Order: sequence, then structure tokens, then C-alpha cells
Amino acid sequence: MTIAWLNQAAANPDENARQAAKLRQSQLTKPGGALGRLETIAIQLAALQSRAQPQIEEVQISVFAGDHGVAAENVSAFPQAVTAEMVKNFARGGAAICVSARAIGATLEVINLGTAHDTGLLENVNNINLGPGTANFTQQAAMTEQQLAQALAVGQQAAQQTDADLFIGGEMGIANTTVASTLACALLKAPTAQLVGAGTGLDQIGIQHKSEVIQRALERHLAQINSPLEALRRLGGFEIAALTGAYIACAQKRLPVLVDGFISSVAALTATRLCRGSEAWFLFAHASAEAGHQRVLKALNAKPLLDLGMRLGEGSGAAIAVPLLRSACALHNEMATFDEAAVSEKLP
Amino acid sequence: MTIAWLNQAAANPDENARQAAKLRQSQLTKPGGALGRLETIAIQLAALQSRAQPQIEEVQISVFAGDHGVAAENVSAFPQAVTAEMVKNFARGGAAICVSARAIGATLEVINLGTAHDTGLLENVNNINLGPGTANFTQQAAMTEQQLAQALAVGQQAAQQTDADLFIGGEMGIANTTVASTLACALLKAPTAQLVGAGTGLDQIGIQHKSEVIQRALERHLAQINSPLEALRRLGGFEIAALTGAYIACAQKRLPVLVDGFISSVAALTATRLCRGSEAWFLFAHASAEAGHQRVLKALNAKPLLDLGMRLGEGSGAAIAVPLLRSACALHNEMATFDEAAVSEKLP
Repeated sequence: MTIAWLNQAAANPDENARQAAKLRQSQLTKPGGALGRLETIAIQLAALQSRAQPQIEEVQISVFAGDHGVAAENVSAFPQAVTAEMVKNFARGGAAICVSARAIGATLEVINLGTAHDTGLLENVNNINLGPGTANFTQQAAMTEQQLAQALAVGQQAAQQTDADLFIGGEMGIANTTVASTLACALLKAPTAQLVGAGTGLDQIGIQHKSEVIQRALERHLAQINSPLEALRRLGGFEIAALTGAYIACAQKRLPVLVDGFISSVAALTATRLCRGSEAWFLFAHASAEAGHQRVLKALNAKPLLDLGMRLGEGSGAAIAVPLLRSACALHNEMATFDEAAVSEKLP
Repeated sequence: MTIAWLNQAAANPDENARQAAKLRQSQLTKPGGALGRLETIAIQLAALQSRAQPQIEEVQISVFAGDHGVAAENVSAFPQAVTAEMVKNFARGGAAICVSARAIGATLEVINLGTAHDTGLLENVNNINLGPGTANFTQQAAMTEQQLAQALAVGQQAAQQTDADLFIGGEMGIANTTVASTLACALLKAPTAQLVGAGTGLDQIGIQHKSEVIQRALERHLAQINSPLEALRRLGGFEIAALTGAYIACAQKRLPVLVDGFISSVAALTATRLCRGSEAWFLFAHASAEAGHQRVLKALNAKPLLDLGMRLGEGSGAAIAVPLLRSACALHNEMATFDEAAVSEKLP
């Protein structure tokens, strides 16, 4: 199976803009390096936005929802009905990501790729019915080739449609930490112990059972997985595929991405396996409390901005981190230089 | 020496508001604990603000500047003229804290307690001339009793005058990491090796020299220090005393404080030694890259919100963290409950 648009190369960051931003940082009225990662973020965003003075004004948040057949294996602390219920909560503005999107003035789009329970028609929700969730991957591939291609294209479209300065992807789907852990095990050839965690709140017995379910899925599929795309089809989910497609399209169109937590990072990992160089476009918002996140971050060589013990998904951790990016840009753009302020420089 | 107002007790957080906020958190449409520290911050702010739904709208930033006699010992990577030059930069809005204050809509007040170089009259700067900096504490006490009392009172007044929901103190003063390290060594009875760092950018030889200067000061004064107040007088500085006074007055008037980095944390440590219970009112914004900060945070049992490698002072790290507090409040106040959103709760 091949999907042509995935093979388009990721764009290259602009090294001239990076150098110009580095020079500007060295002239600002502060000891060199004293703003720590706020300096490196401003320089990175300059390279991504091809301008010496980067800006994060418009932020696009696309939340992808979908159900997972593997929920039938009792791998979640919450009933599957919650996926559809939370889509309705998104539509009414009551979920965490809605509150945070309002707080940062972001555009929030909710895309339901297929839930087991009907949500009815909802204002503010884009319904793309790929099925009542994926198939149970302990028994068969999670998605057909057509479903996978469609889910990836839904993400691509979300990225292509926006003119924002920053893209955030979010997700909702009961059992999707199970799915993300399974997919990460396959991509990283790592044991389940490194990637399985409590999700929305399993106890130790629940986590053990979840590990066994994941092990069964890996045993069924690993031998037939000969590409990252096939791993995604067999072991992924609608919303994870959509995130993956969105991230790749962002990297292709020069749009910086702020990656949320565990699920999103597994989608980012998948994106880097499908589209070389896409990793240059990903910033990582926070270290999730979900156990497997550290392993995925390590594989991505990523150092997130925040570590607040969050583990909610929806894009919530990324939305919380947006003010840091804006602060980095404001300091970079608005601080006086030593010359402008007639401040003495460091002693020789 | 005694200063009467310092002995007024710190206020007690409101335990009823804390419990009400805890209950509300448990009803919001998310797995319990999934917002991590954003949940505990909202609950803490509720207890401090005596309301189940806390808010951080108005933010007061008071930046205290002062020079240090010990700068004559060549302990800084920048010339002493920079203190006055940066006060002028504050007045013109070009410094990092000015940019960040604008970004978060905070009220910024600059108070010059005494610089070695004249700034001239400046709009937007409150001049309190306690002298052309402190005395060189390798030779005598940094401050007279009168200077100390005045500096503490300047901080008290800054805290008392504001109606804001949150107080941030900032500081500027060439050589003030040397001063903060020395004071912390005295208060914590800790060796210099645990508390001395590069400040604005010393190399290893510079750090070694700085340690020797601090050691000399400690040897001169330790035997005569019989109270935290005397430690502050002999080994502190105008701006550190002002910060200490401000923090204590905040704790007395029920105003939450967001503490910045190394210098500010040493002032917070001093405040807790002078006013029992004041620590309940302090939140810690970020882990500074300055080497001694971890030791001071440990003594305060504090876990900062951010770790971005910042080491600028001015209150800059605290200003950067304000959106996190606002996010915590917004999520706490605006998210739908399970009941309101008809979302199913966790499985039994």
C-alpha cells in the first residue's frame, strides 16, 4: 500500500532566518543565554517561519475523535460511550480543550471520524463517518486500507485548510492509550513494559491486563508489518492516523506543530517514519504523566517545554504551552538591544 | 534589632475554600488528576483567595533595584554601571520584564533603592535613595539598621498598595547572585559549593574567585549573626530586603506571591525565617539555571512550575509562568461537570 502525498518531502527550515534570529538574541539587553529555552524556541520558530522575528498569533487546534474496537477488551477505566459524550462536550464548549482554546484565542475544530455511539448532528463538529470505530486489533487489522487513507487525508485537510501560525492536534477516543502503546511498541521494537501505562486511571491489575491485550495484538500482527504505514493500519486508530496525516502535511507546508502528549507523540513518531525530515517542524509541549511518553520522546530526541503531570489528551497540554511560545516571540521581538538602550556589555 | 510589623503573623489559607475547590475538581469532565499540577494550583489558589473559584486577573510586578558594595571584589561578569543602565531600560520599556509585563497585562512598578551610578530623574521609576548601594560586606555590614528597616518597609509598601490578585517581585543589582548566595549560606548553614554559580556568566575561574569572596564575608560575619534579620542586614542587599518585606506583607494581607528565580527564592527563604507561615503564600515559578537555586528550593520544599533554563532575574521567570496560573483557574472555573455535560464517570 502506498499513499502518494505522504512521499512529498518535508520542507527545510530556513537557515538564514535562524542565523538572523541568533544574531538578534545576542544583542538583546540580557546576559547571553539568560532566557534559556525561550531563546532557542524563538530561534527555532524563526527558522520555521522564515522570518528573523517570528510570531504566534493565530493558532489552529484540530481535535480528532474516534472509537477503537480494542475497547471491547476492557482496557479502559471509562466506558466507550464517553468518546461520543465527550464529542458532545466539545461541541458545547465544556471540555478542557474548549476552555484552553478560548483562553489563548485559538480556532478550535472538532472532527469526529467515527464513534461507536451516535452523537446526532452537532453544530461545530465535522462528522466524517469512517465506521463505528476501528476493528478490534486483537482479532484483525484495526483499519482497512481505505479507512487508513481517508483518516490520513482528513488530517492532511485540517492542516492544509488553515492559515494559522501554529498547528495543534488533539484527540479523543476511549482505549487510545492502548492503541498508541501498541503502535509505539511495533515502531520502536520495544517491549510493552516500556510503553504501557494507566491511561485514564487503571490500577495495577488493569495495567497488567492491558499489557497482555497489547502483547496479543503484537503477536497477531508483527510478522505481517513491513512498513510504518502497515503498522498504522493494523495497530492504529482513526484519530491517530488523522493526527499523523496532519503533522506530515504541516511539515510539507512549513507550518510549525506543537505536539501534545502521549497519543500525539506516537502520531508524531509515526509521521517521522513516514516522512523524513518532518521532525524539524515539531515542538513538544509537555511531558505526560502517561508512563510510555518518556520512551517515545526519547525516540524523537524531544525535550518538552512543560512537565506538569498532565495526562488528559484533547490537545490540552499543547494549548497550555502556547503562551510560552508567544512569550519567547515577544521577548525576541520587543526587547531593546544593548545599543538601543545604551547598556554596557559583558566585561572582556 | 526588631522591626515590629515583621512579627505580625502570616494569614492562614482558607481550608473551606480548599475543600470546595477539591470537590469541584472531582466533578469536572476529565479523569481525576488528569490536569496534574493545574489541578493542585487551582485548589491552592482557592485556599489563598478564599473562594472556590479562584482568579488571577490583576497582577502586580514590583521590580526593586539596588547596587552592592561587594561588586568592588570583581564578582560579576558585567560592570556595576549596568544596574543604573538597566533601571533606565526598565523606564523605557526595553527590558525583558517590561515585555513580559505587557504580554500578561500586569502593572509594572520599578523602585530604585540606591544605585552607584546616577540614573537622573526617570518617569515610571520610584527613587528611594538609601545610598549609592550597600557597603562591601567583605569589610563591614552591608546595611545599617536604618537602611535595612527602610528597605523592608519599601517592600511592605509595594505589597500593601496593590489590589492585585497576585504579586510578583523582581530585582536588578549587579553582584546580587553573590549576595544571595552568601545570605543563603548563612541561613542554611550550607557550604558555598552548594550555593555559588555563574550568575550573569562567570567562567570557572570567576566562580572560584566568587566563592572565595563569599567565604571571606562569611568568616567576617557569621559569629555576630544571631538572627535572620541580622543575617539580612550584614549579608543582604537593598533589593533583597525589599523583596523579603514585600513577601511578608503579602502573606500578612492574604496576597498570593509568585516567586521568580534564585535571588527571589533567597528572599522568600529569608521571609519564612522572619515570619512563620509565610511560605503558604508562595508559589514558585521556575527552576533557575543558577546553580544554587535547587538547594534553596529544597530548603523551601518548593517545586517550581517551569524549568526552562532561565537565569535573568527581574521577575522575568515569574511573569512567564502567569499564564499557567490563569489556565489553571480557567479550567477549574469553566469546564463542564460530568452532570452538566451528561458524560459517564469512571467504571466501578
